[in-house]
Amino acid sequence: MKHLLSMEDAKDHVHEILVLAGKFKRGEIPGEPLAKKTLAMIFEKASTRTRISFEVGMYQLGGTALYLSKDDLQLGRGEIVEDTAKAMSRYVDGVMIRAIEHEDVLKFSQNSNAPVINGLTNLEHPCQAFADLLTIYERKKSFDMKLAFVGDGNNVCNSLLLASAFVGMDMNVVCPPGYEPDVEIFKKAKKYAKKTGAELKIINDIEKGVQGVDVVYTDVWISMGDEEEASKRINDFSDYQVNKNLMKHADNDAMILHCLPAIRGQEITADMINSPKSSIWDQAENRLHAQKAVLYLLIS
Amino acid sequence: MKHLLSMEDAKDHVHEILVLAGKFKRGEIPGEPLAKKTLAMIFEKASTRTRISFEVGMYQLGGTALYLSKDDLQLGRGEIVEDTAKAMSRYVDGVMIRAIEHEDVLKFSQNSNAPVINGLTNLEHPCQAFADLLTIYERKKSFDMKLAFVGDGNNVCNSLLLASAFVGMDMNVVCPPGYEPDVEIFKKAKKYAKKTGAELKIINDIEKGVQGVDVVYTDVWISMGDEEEASKRINDFSDYQVNKNLMKHADNDAMILHCLPAIRGQEITADMINSPKSSIWDQAENRLHAQKAVLYLLIS
Amino acid sequence: MKHLLSMEDAKDHVHEILVLAGKFKRGEIPGEPLAKKTLAMIFEKASTRTRISFEVGMYQLGGTALYLSKDDLQLGRGEIVEDTAKAMSRYVDGVMIRAIEHEDVLKFSQNSNAPVINGLTNLEHPCQAFADLLTIYERKKSFDMKLAFVGDGNNVCNSLLLASAFVGMDMNVVCPPGYEPDVEIFKKAKKYAKKTGAELKIINDIEKGVQGVDVVYTDVWISMGDEEEASKRINDFSDYQVNKNLMKHADNDAMILHCLPAIRGQEITADMINSPKSSIWDQAENRLHAQKAVLYLLIS
Repeated sequence: MKHLLSMEDAKDHVHEILVLAGKFKRGEIPGEPLAKKTLAMIFEKASTRTRISFEVGMYQLGGTALYLSKDDLQLGRGEIVEDTAKAMSRYVDGVMIRAIEHEDVLKFSQNSNAPVINGLTNLEHPCQAFADLLTIYERKKSFDMKLAFVGDGNNVCNSLLLASAFVGMDMNVVCPPGYEPDVEIFKKAKKYAKKTGAELKIINDIEKGVQGVDVVYTDVWISMGDEEEASKRINDFSDYQVNKNLMKHADNDAMILHCLPAIRGQEITADMINSPKSSIWDQAENRLHAQKAVLYLLIS
Repeated sequence: MKHLLSMEDAKDHVHEILVLAGKFKRGEIPGEPLAKKTLAMIFEKASTRTRISFEVGMYQLGGTALYLSKDDLQLGRGEIVEDTAKAMSRYVDGVMIRAIEHEDVLKFSQNSNAPVINGLTNLEHPCQAFADLLTIYERKKSFDMKLAFVGDGNNVCNSLLLASAFVGMDMNVVCPPGYEPDVEIFKKAKKYAKKTGAELKIINDIEKGVQGVDVVYTDVWISMGDEEEASKRINDFSDYQVNKNLMKHADNDAMILHCLPAIRGQEITADMINSPKSSIWDQAENRLHAQKAVLYLLIS
Repeated sequence: MKHLLSMEDAKDHVHEILVLAGKFKRGEIPGEPLAKKTLAMIFEKASTRTRISFEVGMYQLGGTALYLSKDDLQLGRGEIVEDTAKAMSRYVDGVMIRAIEHEDVLKFSQNSNAPVINGLTNLEHPCQAFADLLTIYERKKSFDMKLAFVGDGNNVCNSLLLASAFVGMDMNVVCPPGYEPDVEIFKKAKKYAKKTGAELKIINDIEKGVQGVDVVYTDVWISMGDEEEASKRINDFSDYQVNKNLMKHADNDAMILHCLPAIRGQEITADMINSPKSSIWDQAENRLHAQKAVLYLLIS
């Protein structure tokens, strides 16, 4: 694995990353494996969890991270991404990018001597998917189960489809018509799923979609960049809320995930966020441990 | 002391913090007591001294600090402060917040696993008060004296009232009518002052207010957030300037403090900033040493 | 050398800095010579290379750097630069400033206890000049040659004139009338050039200016701050492009430099950036090594 641009890049390392992440969480990897190593973090969009977990993760591994907002860089002055990549990768040992366009992260990686990590694009969010898998395994001790992703077939959903295929977990994408995940990624995920036996489905009927599932996962209806179509989306997603009634259709022991930030009263109700079924805060914390595993593999 | 939200939280630790701060200043605490510890610093408003002194302080103690402006966070995207607190405190060992609303810092602390430090709110500025006490003690070797705070009964004044009560120092708040310190804090401070014998007064007459005092302290007339009423404030405070004439009413050896930034010609004249009576730059430096003591107590 | 405000400040240290930079590049200076040292970096303008190379450089030397944009500081609230300098230099061991006005960097240095480094002003860019010298020497093993700086006689050009004078390298500034380098600096450089034998010339005729030269250096036509006169500049500089035809007039082995960012099709063509003659990416990397040498000399 040279870069982590898509969840697909990690297809041969999923088990290894999860094991490493668990070891980091339990403090079983001492010392400073990334001593004197530097990570540049480029943010075209705001971030709380991604930024803090990467910055703290690099530091805990013995290295350091540089926070670069788009405004801080000459990118805003018309410097092309290829040039930024060529120069920047001479200075640092790794680059994390949160970009609006997935294409820009690909271009960056093609011109970078240093490993590049996708920290969220319009297409994928692989680091989130590792934290999700870790959280599910911690609570369920298995991936032999079914997850329903309720809501928008977005970047988080796309990476999770590939992740589910790799670990053999069944996954229903439960979304209104028109909000299906990326066609190409779904095809790829189905192909990988054949090997592991994971069943991947897109289901518009929400009650059917969550019937008997072990994990219910949701995300905001209006992602960064979707603000203009906010009212249309609120209308289209109005029946796709994770609430007490919906959870009756899931397994009795079903767990709830949300990658945050959450808008109470839209995609999820406050009582579900606070319910014992929710592992949302562990999931947030696991960003740190999962990313330390990714950084360790790519940079050390 | 779990958090430092108000000066009141430190009421049993004032002496300890001042002693520690002195030791840090003199280099008497070797090693890296906060090795591998991380501090998130959230800034809703601009900062020079608070930001640099906390970031350098954490580093000198062996840890690291993350600078987070409001724009960098999802807080701006509607994430509620409770959720930010819950997630963020999973990643870091402490959080420093400069917030517009004191209420937000309270909410954050109630949802945080990690200690929270008030780095200035509309109500209080406890870190400044520790630097003030340290600077006074360095020059006067005692708190058995009287301080006049000339100007706006603001956050700096509020925390200093409590601080004066704790160490038994007399304090006159010398302000125009309508600019008195917070009523509740003044009441609290008076209550604590009974134990130490500190005399706390609010005086509108400026000459009377600085008569014979040992310390003259001032701050800007127009704090961040007050810009709209700038012309009214300049008018209301016009007689409350720290200048050569005013200092004739204070003790001959009186010292001058200012928490900066200073607007020459408004609350203070240039000659007073540069006079031998001024300890303003030592006071600025002492932010670093005092905050290292606070960080050491809360996080190590 | 107390500060590095102008290339002139380094006149007695050029050789030493280049030797040190080479050692840092080859990893020949082990350990952490700047352990526990802090550098404040103030940016009034955007930056990619300067910011990252300084931040990574401090870290690799064992210290840390603080990134301060103008908006983060109270400078924006009307605090005068002298006060910021006095307070800030109590906290840190060095200050790097990218300022719009060279005058502000001078004022800062006059009020700073800590060494101040010019990270680009309207007048000079000395850190760039050290990277330039290092890159030329790496490829040519000598300064006994002639460089043509094609384009705007700007800050980069000014510092390079002084640098050329110090190392005895001939330099033609090849620019349209009205875009000559700073008169005072050119005079100074000529004075120093007398001692080393460097020939410094201003030439408007571009073919004559690059005739037989060993190094062709260019920079953007429209620097930060020049945006308003963009169309005029594009017109005025239209004949001053570094392209295949122009390079025929230079020496067969001539190398190409550019301090970046580059606007392809304006000051340089894409094929020249990618040509084997180009050392542009080494030049970018050398910012790191040269600045580590400067930091080491000033702060350790």
